[in-house]
Amino acid sequence: MSEKGLDQLEQLRKRLDEINLQILELLSERGRIAQEIGKVKLKSGINRFDPVRERKMLDILAEKNQGPFETSTIQHIFKEIFKASLELQEDDNRKALLV
Amino acid sequence: MSEKGLDQLEQLRKRLDEINLQILELLSERGRIAQEIGKVKLKSGINRFDPVRERKMLDILAEKNQGPFETSTIQHIFKEIFKASLELQEDDNRKALLV
Repeated sequence: MSEKGLDQLEQLRKRLDEINLQILELLSERGRIAQEIGKVKLKSGINRFDPVRERKMLDILAEKNQGPFETSTIQHIFKEIFKASLELQEDDNRKALLV
Repeated sequence: MSEKGLDQLEQLRKRLDEINLQILELLSERGRIAQEIGKVKLKSGINRFDPVRERKMLDILAEKNQGPFETSTIQHIFKEIFKASLELQEDDNRKALLV
């Protein structure tokens, strides 16, 4: 690989590392908010999982997605995020029940 | 659910929607950078998939993760993002070969 190519690659990878950490930060904040939502729901005795709400979030993402990822890919990644958030709420609730 | 609870839920969901869109934006930017990297690599004839680089990114995420998600959960989500990025590069290269 040419020196110019290596230099370019290095710069692009640096940017990728920055974006990874920004995504991590947003995911973590999202996790904390999901925990808050779980607490509010637990207090009210309503179910944590709300498929209508999840569908609405996926629809908004489809509407806003401008690529380069296919909407199906974006939705697949977000479904993993939703699943992780739900597990976080379930863990919290289990702990709350044990107290 | 009490009015206060509903109001709280509404606020938290609004914040969640904002964060979803911020994550979408970062994912899209990440996708574009992955495409750039793919082009540089294609020009240089080097392999797109680099397991050492991927491991390094996962290690950095493990080091920086402060919760509430488990590191294994964060890494699982990022592996999905890496896979999607690789597929994006592969699609581009296929198109480049067809030109």
